[in-house]
Amino acid sequence: MKIIRDPKRMQAQAAAWRAEGKRIGLVPTMGYLHAGHLSLVRLAAARADVVVVSIFVNPTQFGPREDLNRYPRDFVRDRSNCRGAGVDAIFYPAAAAMYPPDYSVYVNEERLSAGLCGARRPGHFRGVCTVVAKLFNLVSPHVAVFGEKDAQQLRVLRRMTRDLNFPIEIVAGPIAREPDGLALSSRNTYLTPAQRRAAPELRRALEETAARYSAGERSAARLRAALRRRLARIPGARVDYVELVDDATLRPVRRVEKPALVALAVWFGKTRLIDNLRLGG
Amino acid sequence: MKIIRDPKRMQAQAAAWRAEGKRIGLVPTMGYLHAGHLSLVRLAAARADVVVVSIFVNPTQFGPREDLNRYPRDFVRDRSNCRGAGVDAIFYPAAAAMYPPDYSVYVNEERLSAGLCGARRPGHFRGVCTVVAKLFNLVSPHVAVFGEKDAQQLRVLRRMTRDLNFPIEIVAGPIAREPDGLALSSRNTYLTPAQRRAAPELRRALEETAARYSAGERSAARLRAALRRRLARIPGARVDYVELVDDATLRPVRRVEKPALVALAVWFGKTRLIDNLRLGG
Repeated sequence: MKIIRDPKRMQAQAAAWRAEGKRIGLVPTMGYLHAGHLSLVRLAAARADVVVVSIFVNPTQFGPREDLNRYPRDFVRDRSNCRGAGVDAIFYPAAAAMYPPDYSVYVNEERLSAGLCGARRPGHFRGVCTVVAKLFNLVSPHVAVFGEKDAQQLRVLRRMTRDLNFPIEIVAGPIAREPDGLALSSRNTYLTPAQRRAAPELRRALEETAARYSAGERSAARLRAALRRRLARIPGARVDYVELVDDATLRPVRRVEKPALVALAVWFGKTRLIDNLRLGG
Repeated sequence: MKIIRDPKRMQAQAAAWRAEGKRIGLVPTMGYLHAGHLSLVRLAAARADVVVVSIFVNPTQFGPREDLNRYPRDFVRDRSNCRGAGVDAIFYPAAAAMYPPDYSVYVNEERLSAGLCGARRPGHFRGVCTVVAKLFNLVSPHVAVFGEKDAQQLRVLRRMTRDLNFPIEIVAGPIAREPDGLALSSRNTYLTPAQRRAAPELRRALEETAARYSAGERSAARLRAALRRRLARIPGARVDYVELVDDATLRPVRRVEKPALVALAVWFGKTRLIDNLRLGG
């Protein structure tokens, strides 16, 4: 397994693979890999000859008061996990190599990123789109895999890929969960034991919303209100947002008649967790 | 010579050329080709095995009160000029194929595009960067050629290429001029006979600035004031801007000690012409 730090070397390696006719799969990550990331690696491996995992805690997608500095890092463990998963190369650039001092170009998605996490984290998707556009040009993948946990990110990046005409197939990986239902996230490591015990309630609350939908409830306001009440009962939880949005446009819906996304972000102390569920279709 | 209208077909053609080991050169244009464009085609041909000229009057780089609708078009003549210049393919997409109704992704350069034409034409370089990023992904060139007449555009696009890590060499073509010194531009066709007679004074005014610089003048304020006075004497001319800026950062300079760019935009009636000259280095 190659460890590539220099962007120019990554680009040269990608060109060499392409010249050999190899299909390249990319799994962009911020490291601190868990079973969710490794499930994305398997999806990439099934669709490509070589798999690159990028590990980069991207500063441009963090707000000034967010957790950039405390974001968990463990390259030795990540390397071992990647080796075990049959990854061909880790692209592990330094921040200064990705963003020189006079860096000045950003990619903005202006519609799908307006609500949900985008409304709560100004500039977040600008940073995400920018770094992923850079990774696409550095790794030159045929296929790139992103997780459904970051539902808005997945849709924003599909749109970016379409609108900027990147010749890349975007594959979505289903949310990986702990046995008790908590969605896997590198940020789960921040949780205190009490918060960790409470956090699986997010998933149960979403399942209750799905049950209400299955029982015939189609009013977004009623589904949302019930979910919000349910979340309010979780010890130590503070709702950041709860939304029912159209699955394609991410705009709030009044009635769930087309596929919809129930998306939530909840604070446990200083830790913000997200989860989501699709309804219909 | 191929005429390719469908973006997906363009991308497939580019992939086929790459699979054959061909080097691809791209000359992005808005059509109504003149000898300046054709000089860029020659630069591309010298560096590539196949040359693509894109012809696309890009709506996103025009402001709401600008000349999008009256911008000159003559595809039949362009096609004949391209054939004569040995172009391998014209990429000639429809606006709706480049920008579907729910289009939402834009590329912004945030520093170099702040002044000069960027200050006078809000959103212009956002449109330019966006369409060029799209063209890069559709044509997949090894080398792309842009003219020095659009000096700020050239620098903004070099920066975009660097910052988004496009694996593409950017080549600059020198300004092509009429025998009387007027910089070639598709917009020259808008000029009335009297405006056309006056317009070459722009170049002469720039040459006088170069002469003052050669004679030892280094004060940007004095060079600029003399140039502005000179331009004010041109019949029918109204100055949009005159600037002396650092050639790399495009920030205004006080003294010309490093390579500088003298850039101007001047209205003749409803027609806005630009020209520029480098000082030093």
